[in-house]
Amino acid sequence: MINFALFGAGRIGSIHGNNVAKHPQARLVALHDPFQANADRLCGELGCEQMSPELIFASDDIQAVLICSATDTHADLIEAAVGAGKHVFCEKPIDLSLQRVQLCLDRISQSDRKTMVAFNRRFDPNFQILKDKIEAGDIGAVELVSIISKDPAPPPLDYIRVSGGLFRDMTIHDFDMARFLLAEEVVSVNARASCLVDAAIGEAGDVDTAVITMATASGKLAQISNSRRASFGHDQRIEVHGSEGMLVAQNVNENTVLAYNHAGVSSARPLHFFLERYEAAYRAELDGFVRCLMGEAIKLPTLDDGLQSILLAEAALLSLQQGRNVNLSELDG
Amino acid sequence: MINFALFGAGRIGSIHGNNVAKHPQARLVALHDPFQANADRLCGELGCEQMSPELIFASDDIQAVLICSATDTHADLIEAAVGAGKHVFCEKPIDLSLQRVQLCLDRISQSDRKTMVAFNRRFDPNFQILKDKIEAGDIGAVELVSIISKDPAPPPLDYIRVSGGLFRDMTIHDFDMARFLLAEEVVSVNARASCLVDAAIGEAGDVDTAVITMATASGKLAQISNSRRASFGHDQRIEVHGSEGMLVAQNVNENTVLAYNHAGVSSARPLHFFLERYEAAYRAELDGFVRCLMGEAIKLPTLDDGLQSILLAEAALLSLQQGRNVNLSELDG
Amino acid sequence: MINFALFGAGRIGSIHGNNVAKHPQARLVALHDPFQANADRLCGELGCEQMSPELIFASDDIQAVLICSATDTHADLIEAAVGAGKHVFCEKPIDLSLQRVQLCLDRISQSDRKTMVAFNRRFDPNFQILKDKIEAGDIGAVELVSIISKDPAPPPLDYIRVSGGLFRDMTIHDFDMARFLLAEEVVSVNARASCLVDAAIGEAGDVDTAVITMATASGKLAQISNSRRASFGHDQRIEVHGSEGMLVAQNVNENTVLAYNHAGVSSARPLHFFLERYEAAYRAELDGFVRCLMGEAIKLPTLDDGLQSILLAEAALLSLQQGRNVNLSELDG
Amino acid sequence: MINFALFGAGRIGSIHGNNVAKHPQARLVALHDPFQANADRLCGELGCEQMSPELIFASDDIQAVLICSATDTHADLIEAAVGAGKHVFCEKPIDLSLQRVQLCLDRISQSDRKTMVAFNRRFDPNFQILKDKIEAGDIGAVELVSIISKDPAPPPLDYIRVSGGLFRDMTIHDFDMARFLLAEEVVSVNARASCLVDAAIGEAGDVDTAVITMATASGKLAQISNSRRASFGHDQRIEVHGSEGMLVAQNVNENTVLAYNHAGVSSARPLHFFLERYEAAYRAELDGFVRCLMGEAIKLPTLDDGLQSILLAEAALLSLQQGRNVNLSELDG
Repeated sequence: MINFALFGAGRIGSIHGNNVAKHPQARLVALHDPFQANADRLCGELGCEQMSPELIFASDDIQAVLICSATDTHADLIEAAVGAGKHVFCEKPIDLSLQRVQLCLDRISQSDRKTMVAFNRRFDPNFQILKDKIEAGDIGAVELVSIISKDPAPPPLDYIRVSGGLFRDMTIHDFDMARFLLAEEVVSVNARASCLVDAAIGEAGDVDTAVITMATASGKLAQISNSRRASFGHDQRIEVHGSEGMLVAQNVNENTVLAYNHAGVSSARPLHFFLERYEAAYRAELDGFVRCLMGEAIKLPTLDDGLQSILLAEAALLSLQQGRNVNLSELDG
Repeated sequence: MINFALFGAGRIGSIHGNNVAKHPQARLVALHDPFQANADRLCGELGCEQMSPELIFASDDIQAVLICSATDTHADLIEAAVGAGKHVFCEKPIDLSLQRVQLCLDRISQSDRKTMVAFNRRFDPNFQILKDKIEAGDIGAVELVSIISKDPAPPPLDYIRVSGGLFRDMTIHDFDMARFLLAEEVVSVNARASCLVDAAIGEAGDVDTAVITMATASGKLAQISNSRRASFGHDQRIEVHGSEGMLVAQNVNENTVLAYNHAGVSSARPLHFFLERYEAAYRAELDGFVRCLMGEAIKLPTLDDGLQSILLAEAALLSLQQGRNVNLSELDG
Repeated sequence: MINFALFGAGRIGSIHGNNVAKHPQARLVALHDPFQANADRLCGELGCEQMSPELIFASDDIQAVLICSATDTHADLIEAAVGAGKHVFCEKPIDLSLQRVQLCLDRISQSDRKTMVAFNRRFDPNFQILKDKIEAGDIGAVELVSIISKDPAPPPLDYIRVSGGLFRDMTIHDFDMARFLLAEEVVSVNARASCLVDAAIGEAGDVDTAVITMATASGKLAQISNSRRASFGHDQRIEVHGSEGMLVAQNVNENTVLAYNHAGVSSARPLHFFLERYEAAYRAELDGFVRCLMGEAIKLPTLDDGLQSILLAEAALLSLQQGRNVNLSELDG
Repeated sequence: MINFALFGAGRIGSIHGNNVAKHPQARLVALHDPFQANADRLCGELGCEQMSPELIFASDDIQAVLICSATDTHADLIEAAVGAGKHVFCEKPIDLSLQRVQLCLDRISQSDRKTMVAFNRRFDPNFQILKDKIEAGDIGAVELVSIISKDPAPPPLDYIRVSGGLFRDMTIHDFDMARFLLAEEVVSVNARASCLVDAAIGEAGDVDTAVITMATASGKLAQISNSRRASFGHDQRIEVHGSEGMLVAQNVNENTVLAYNHAGVSSARPLHFFLERYEAAYRAELDGFVRCLMGEAIKLPTLDDGLQSILLAEAALLSLQQGRNVNLSELDG
């Protein structure tokens, strides 16, 4: 049994907290959220204790922490938790600043604690099948990865202003997925983007529609398309084209019903948003972390994966500003 | 909050017991199973008490019972539970004997307790959409209901020998679904069946492959096709053809991945069997019962629905023996 | 090169005449239609000569005839053509009277001329794949054949009155397809039917919605569902369930476009009616006949296949009238 | 009736020649191919006369020419044909040299003859439906066009060496389709490409796998993915994401059969290559040209469309060489 403390009792903290509560080998013993109403609500729901960060880190009873608090607290909490000997499950991103991420990784580099960045999509059952089939050689050598990732509707402007922008906030998942499926580091990025959904997003300094292409040293290619708005739901599809075949993970739809009439055939939309779409992925992700802590040889997304996705976001931003391909090597040091 | 006692801690009892345990308005306080190992295991899992039927019925703390015990105990338990003032959620069938079912219904006919036969497929989200769209008039008048229902593999022969036969054991779900979607009583049945899967099933006096057709007084038609074996998984589909369109509930598949290669395109199988396929339906069914007990106007499958499906099974058996259409009126009294 | 004469210049005669005209090894040299306007129109279109039946049968230049005239002339024309040494491609049915069909087959039984009943669906590319895969053993032993066959809208009442009724006019194709895929003779038939589409069809003595089940001696089962009206187009699907798998021939749709919006996903309807749906089948059927005449070992639907499908229609009618399963042996002699 | 002469009796000349021969308002009266065997074969097949270019241009009997000869003859033949008062249907590309294309357009700019570049995919029934639905406003404003275009296998190296490279030879269709669906000119291009299919293609100075992104002045985006090899057939799909929905033109598959077994569900591959995939498009394209010549208001792809696609190919090449986004304005004059 692993005892957990949770930082952050908002939407994503609630997901992970509930998954811990339902997990047969995990127990949520404490949570902390400076926003008291959130903390009270989730404690009531899950029946755990509220504790200060200091007490959490000092407690011998807590083996692992879930960091679901505001982004600008992630790096500090990772460092403190690892320093206190806790294993760490941290929501993405580690930080919006590349330098801060690198510093965090440096500071904990000597620790043997398990640390994981919560790239939940790696645990999506459909995407996991892509990965498994690629590794089994079903499509030969991977040549082109295409990721379609669109949200049903843009978040509030207040959120967008502090989000770090589309690439760091939303595309970051797709950067990680591209790396996961390419199984080779990206060396060069090109990004093109527009503000087509809502002019206010542009006024806030962000974009809402983007196409990113990437290449690896051996010439494998990847493309991502993003939009902050898809009227029909959460559009989350991946295609992997290989030398001997192609894999496609289609959307997960609301139901399987077809309705035929004189106008044609209608079927269900994709599941509306990430809470529904990735429900199983969130559960599998937490389960993977627990099983890793219990000693199983589970491959988890590392803090370095978190760093790499931030690097790709930086490169994409630079590419967008300068209208050229950006080599990852330009961002070094 | 509704307090439940559970009779029967086997596979289906475990499903319903777990769903009660997870339900925010329900609590499992007691269970009984004469097979002690089952009782111990499920009590350990769910943390409830073991009680004798007598104590369960005598307890003021228990408002409702889940009857998941052996089929030949259902009718007795329904009568005892209703007599003790409990609400009843009973697994199908009420009994294999039509006479016993009728007697049971007579005996409890004066009670105001809520009673429900657990036709879980009515609560399947996809089939529920069929029902909703029919009632919304999306396809005009229903004219032809087609139900495909095949299990991945036959049950053990020991089970088949006591099952009451294909029609009472397996088709009973489809009889209920036909009635549910036709929204008009069936007046005539024809059944054709063979033993094609395993000769031993035939030696046990049963069939394993069947096609049943039915008609209502107004001429609506329904057809069911059954097999005890579908190499590719649990084949559970429904089509409803109406005057202005058609609805099709397709299978629920294991995942959404397509794999393309020189040989063609392959995709996932249907979910393997009823535990996976109807997981959501089982949850929704229990939830419907709880909400009904909490006072919501939920339409539940009644004991009379249980009786009607047994009547259809009897008619199908008679049709099979005599090679003719059988009118339901022949089975009266 | 095979020289053809065509009897009947209506809709179906026009299809076959055009296919002859386009076939590299066939030539349409003559046609006859007592309805002069039809004959003139099609001659103008195809550039062939109008000839009397007598001249056609007497011509040494004509090796084969296409019989697409009124149903009640088919048997006479088959006998005359075979008597004159012509090969015969005849539209279904041979005759509406079982006795007349049997007499026709008796009369030509000594001839070595090639004769074929035009069950075009056997040549549909999709259904042909079903047949090929069954014969290749892809699904093991065939156990259950399910045929869904619905027209977009009923024909005019004038046609229905002379059509011989749903079973002889429409289901006849499905009877033949069931025999083709079962690869074993049907021994018993049950039919259930209603008049749900148009009361006038019932007043004309016919039904418009039907479900037929059949069994072979070894216990293989088949089911057909028919409607004279499907608001969404020509619904033509077949499923074959076998001991080791299932084959499904889905509808052929108008296009491949999916349209997503907030209401869901819409896609194209099935092709509207048989002219579009079976265009390739009509071409392949004529090609099969020509290649057979050129000496290739092509398996064509025989006049006996035509007889068997009429027998099944008779059995279905008798079943409908008497409310029981009808054995084919009852119809002998 | 329009009388045609055909230049070039190779594979594509044979397609268009046959479509003329079958068209009710068109007649193929002459053809020319310096490769005598080709000329003889197609004349034998279609029953037309062989004529020198001089006689073709001088003939009063010929209203239109089909230019399907070697690419380096296209521009000369266009100029000569227009000079001789003929209407012109020309295979893409007009020329591999941008300068030559511009000169050609300048030289014929004063003519009133109808000229068309044969971008056949604009006439594909599925893609046409995309265009129609976009114009009908079904998805609101177009924001992102995604074109997947992969050939089943690379052409011979001899062909690749003279093809002008992937962008001018293969992507040119996709450039045109992007412009067609965006309905706004592209102002900037980025191309990324690799040689992954066959090292010999790289040695010949070409690439075989590419991802291209484009933007219009208003910020609409488009992406193209190309491969010279898709083991499963001709992969030709288009997605258009708009403010109120998304349109997807899926592949056209070989058949509609699903085969279920214990391993999963398999279905047919996409049609193998362009001859099968775009058969209907080739017919519709020729028909569009004929109907335009007969006076109908048909919108055809113009020589300027041919020029624009060459410009995009040039920009893509420059982008690939320089690792940056290329503005179309850089290629002016």
